[in-house]
Amino acid sequence: MQRYKVAVCQMTIHQEKEKNLVRAREMIARAARQGARLVVLPEMFNCPYVARLFPRYAESYPEGPSLQMLSRAAREEGVYLVGGSLPERDGDQVYNTSFIFAPDGRLLGKHRKMHLFDVELASGLTVKESSTIGAGNQVTVIPSELGDLGVAICYDIRFPELMRLMVLKGARVVVIPAAFNMTTGPAHWELVFRMRAIDNQAYFIGASPARDPMAPYVAYGHSLVVDPWGNVVSMAREGEEIVYAEIDLDLIEKTRSELPLLRHRRTDIYALELLAP
Amino acid sequence: MQRYKVAVCQMTIHQEKEKNLVRAREMIARAARQGARLVVLPEMFNCPYVARLFPRYAESYPEGPSLQMLSRAAREEGVYLVGGSLPERDGDQVYNTSFIFAPDGRLLGKHRKMHLFDVELASGLTVKESSTIGAGNQVTVIPSELGDLGVAICYDIRFPELMRLMVLKGARVVVIPAAFNMTTGPAHWELVFRMRAIDNQAYFIGASPARDPMAPYVAYGHSLVVDPWGNVVSMAREGEEIVYAEIDLDLIEKTRSELPLLRHRRTDIYALELLAP
Repeated sequence: MQRYKVAVCQMTIHQEKEKNLVRAREMIARAARQGARLVVLPEMFNCPYVARLFPRYAESYPEGPSLQMLSRAAREEGVYLVGGSLPERDGDQVYNTSFIFAPDGRLLGKHRKMHLFDVELASGLTVKESSTIGAGNQVTVIPSELGDLGVAICYDIRFPELMRLMVLKGARVVVIPAAFNMTTGPAHWELVFRMRAIDNQAYFIGASPARDPMAPYVAYGHSLVVDPWGNVVSMAREGEEIVYAEIDLDLIEKTRSELPLLRHRRTDIYALELLAP
Repeated sequence: MQRYKVAVCQMTIHQEKEKNLVRAREMIARAARQGARLVVLPEMFNCPYVARLFPRYAESYPEGPSLQMLSRAAREEGVYLVGGSLPERDGDQVYNTSFIFAPDGRLLGKHRKMHLFDVELASGLTVKESSTIGAGNQVTVIPSELGDLGVAICYDIRFPELMRLMVLKGARVVVIPAAFNMTTGPAHWELVFRMRAIDNQAYFIGASPARDPMAPYVAYGHSLVVDPWGNVVSMAREGEEIVYAEIDLDLIEKTRSELPLLRHRRTDIYALELLAP
């Protein structure tokens, strides 16, 4: 499929998990009715972004209710679904994990956030995700008829090494469920998505929760889709909404042939390598 | 020196080399009179940006007249001088090279452009720098009391690997003589400088020729200085001018301690390595 519609669901996150699941399910249905082939939810779509709450909201695959909902929604709506992220329990450990489902409801893969957000910003905002979350160890690229999908989560996009490794593994559409805040959002959100797209000549999609000034962590919003030349194809405002964009995979080849950045890398001078595992 | 003034000389480039040398010398003097400790010239400051002309304008170190002028200017004005770039002859080969001089006129180091600009843009602009220029093989970081200076040239900034390697080698102020054009400039110039600064939490300085609509290659202008948080401290317009900015090295530590990007790199998962030489 060389051209298709993507929908990014910028949903408001509530305290009650059940309410979040109902809302996500509704938005996926609405996106599918608009013809979207790929639907994306935001980071921690079933849970407030508060580190100490993550273990309480955590679920295991496949029996967790959020995971059941995602698989069923993908199948019933016949869409590819990047299920934002949610707290995943695996034994004693909890991860910030994105689960990706095929239109038949099958799990295609998952990404566990690799770079944990431990910061003390001058604005007074302090977050220590590592206090409750374990870090993933895998670069995630999922073959699909939509073009190979790279998936990473929020702070992961800050690291050009990981973005490059995804693209070198074949990612052509990179999906980033994310929740930048009111300090990093205005300063860096649009910039980082545009620059990763420009550097890697791939589509970059950012899915944020809607901004809720009453939430303990206020997300920036402005979910967006950026094309391989760095143009913003669509961008949400701050409230709850679904943004749509057309993905045109031919634009990737066109951009790469005009400005052959990937071919011009000096791999005789530097090497970017994926270590085990 | 934790705080000092930098001057970026956005000069108009003429056909006649001698005219360019006189103009550069004047601008360096003016910058020094304004209190600049670091002065930067643009890419190919002594020569029109036309690949077939590079061999004709090329000079060897130390006897070339442009190189003599630069060394003398640094000494006479008592400034650190990143001499933009010029065509350097070394045996049979010509390079696009930046020479960096100390306030006593000594050569501190040089950078030969590592990524050559060979593109065929949709706008109709075609450049094949490799038709007359050889590629450099060195990552350039120059210890100095101004903070270690990373130096690279124009298209080099497109490659996050090289920028990261400079910063991992200790660069705190990265200087990029560059000549983006009227296609890539409006689309990417400001973005790429801001994002490299954000990712690497260092100062990034871009020095462009002034825009000359009559030139065979029309430079974008908009020379700029970006701080480690990605704020544009100063930016030129398109014409000939000198832009000044204050560099505050403490801001690098402050930014790195709030948002510890360099420390959060997952060096257990990926490795960016400099190969020989």
